[in-house]
Amino acid sequence: MYSVVMAGGSGTRFWPASREARPKQLLALTGSRSLLQQTVARMAPLTPAEKVLVVTGASHAAAVAGQLPQVPAEQVVAEPLARNTAAAAGLAAAWVAKKDPAAVCLVLPADHLITDEPLFIETLRRAAETARSGDFLVTLGLTPRYPATGFGYIEAGETLRPEPPQVCKVKAFHEKPDLAVAKEYLASGRHLWNSGMFAWRAEVLLAEIQRFLPELAAGLQELAPDLGTPRQARALARVYPQLPKISVDNGVLEKSAAIRVVKADFGWSDVGSWDAMAELWQEDHLGNACQEGRILAIEAKGNLVAAGGRLTALLGVDNLVAVVTEDALLILPRERCQDVRQVIDRLKRDGLDEYL
Amino acid sequence: MYSVVMAGGSGTRFWPASREARPKQLLALTGSRSLLQQTVARMAPLTPAEKVLVVTGASHAAAVAGQLPQVPAEQVVAEPLARNTAAAAGLAAAWVAKKDPAAVCLVLPADHLITDEPLFIETLRRAAETARSGDFLVTLGLTPRYPATGFGYIEAGETLRPEPPQVCKVKAFHEKPDLAVAKEYLASGRHLWNSGMFAWRAEVLLAEIQRFLPELAAGLQELAPDLGTPRQARALARVYPQLPKISVDNGVLEKSAAIRVVKADFGWSDVGSWDAMAELWQEDHLGNACQEGRILAIEAKGNLVAAGGRLTALLGVDNLVAVVTEDALLILPRERCQDVRQVIDRLKRDGLDEYL
Repeated sequence: MYSVVMAGGSGTRFWPASREARPKQLLALTGSRSLLQQTVARMAPLTPAEKVLVVTGASHAAAVAGQLPQVPAEQVVAEPLARNTAAAAGLAAAWVAKKDPAAVCLVLPADHLITDEPLFIETLRRAAETARSGDFLVTLGLTPRYPATGFGYIEAGETLRPEPPQVCKVKAFHEKPDLAVAKEYLASGRHLWNSGMFAWRAEVLLAEIQRFLPELAAGLQELAPDLGTPRQARALARVYPQLPKISVDNGVLEKSAAIRVVKADFGWSDVGSWDAMAELWQEDHLGNACQEGRILAIEAKGNLVAAGGRLTALLGVDNLVAVVTEDALLILPRERCQDVRQVIDRLKRDGLDEYL
Repeated sequence: MYSVVMAGGSGTRFWPASREARPKQLLALTGSRSLLQQTVARMAPLTPAEKVLVVTGASHAAAVAGQLPQVPAEQVVAEPLARNTAAAAGLAAAWVAKKDPAAVCLVLPADHLITDEPLFIETLRRAAETARSGDFLVTLGLTPRYPATGFGYIEAGETLRPEPPQVCKVKAFHEKPDLAVAKEYLASGRHLWNSGMFAWRAEVLLAEIQRFLPELAAGLQELAPDLGTPRQARALARVYPQLPKISVDNGVLEKSAAIRVVKADFGWSDVGSWDAMAELWQEDHLGNACQEGRILAIEAKGNLVAAGGRLTALLGVDNLVAVVTEDALLILPRERCQDVRQVIDRLKRDGLDEYL
């Protein structure tokens, strides 16, 4: 069994902490370890470090390897450019299949946060067991906690295993809904958040890619002889740009008949924006929270502060986000956290590339 | 002629930039030089550095001397504790009188900002000339620009010299007014802001102190033999605690009959709070201003930022003050700038002395 950590993100929503050279998964947004480090450490009960494969962008490979000294260097695979998750998952499956085609790949985003780790491990064990029991692509579906419009949904079908973590057939995949539809999904009890976490045998994913994305399959076959050899980087540079840009959900899972979903209900966050830190950082009784350091609040509530250990005095301000880094300061209302990309756009327009 | 720079302030309203060990006058709030350095440099056309006397608190004397390498070290006089401006001005007059009793002292606060320096110099020349022409205590009265309630007022009497800078007799001193009275003062055309800037011959101030504050006069006489000698610090430590705590305005000027006021209309600010920086820093077209560095404003206006050269991104926030130092961050609305002392109070209450 392998853990495949998908560390290709280049998120901009955590600017100024996240930068092109330092994406979200490399940041220590909670505690002292980065989300990537937490992701790898969390898998230890299932896979030792020598069975961890990390797929990341070439520009982040050195930083990723630096954060994960326990993972063998050749198991940090650098994509020369981003080609979405079908290519990344396919690349990982092809890499693993060279060692053992029947090995189960547990595919995990590097930038999510899990709070109930024992239940997470139990759920992944169930997913791995399901992947081993037949030619299935297994996806984890999270029990929705609110009518989210920012996630895709998996509609569960027939329940195959009623003891939790439950295993079900999949009736349908649904794109991100509007709020009214999201409320229906929440009420139905059958719709689950599409988490981006999967389990499958390497050979099973490769077979489904062969069926639904033959162009990707051809590329992976061309790569295969060079994977895990000193020729790997050159082969990737040659083949990768030609691979189709499509997600593994859209390109494979939604088309395949061999899908199972494991219902997941461990504490989970995709840490989508600064605003998400409210539930992850310790709040005071006025709802002010900081990453580290201390907040001194006078007539101030609901503020989120990442000020690098500084003492933060807030007087008469509510529901702000403030972030201080070595070279930048960001202040905005919490409800505008999704608009941080506007700052990125402005930096680009103004030629302030050193802050990207 | 001597410039006497009153550098005894321990202002808290510029926290977190100002600290007990680094009061406002030692900060470079505008440009690269501190207010103290600007004050001394500004006097160069009137007095060379060897004719500058700085009176400051013992805990700041080393920092003051460090910022003013051109001023002879023995001319930074350290008060062992604060005894208000009558004692400080009297001490300076006694110090100067030992060299030359007839020397004019130009007394200037170390923490004010002057924008029209040529007119400032011209006004001080007129004040010095008036001080030399008779046994007068000369005060500078600033033409009010708005109905300020934070300053005392000088009511000008008979005009003795009509060409500007005008010299007048003084009809009355008035305490800080309420807003209605301040509006009357502004409308009268005869009321001037009491600036805390003075000119007098050393012997004249000492004579008036003898008349109105005999206890202070006695202390100064006891100090006199030791001033300017290696025994000065020990003498100050012995005598200073007994001196009366009173301002030179309340203790001497308001009682004296020998007062003249010179009307002053150079660009002036007492730099009373962060909010005052709005007119001193360069504003963008949305009224955002920063001390150094750069502001990137998106739907944000009227904000003031001191972030130590950082790029500051403001999105959807108005009329805030944000200050970043090495160990602290402050955010508050501009209209609450006077309340920064509440932060100081809270720091004391919470035992966070390292931030004071």
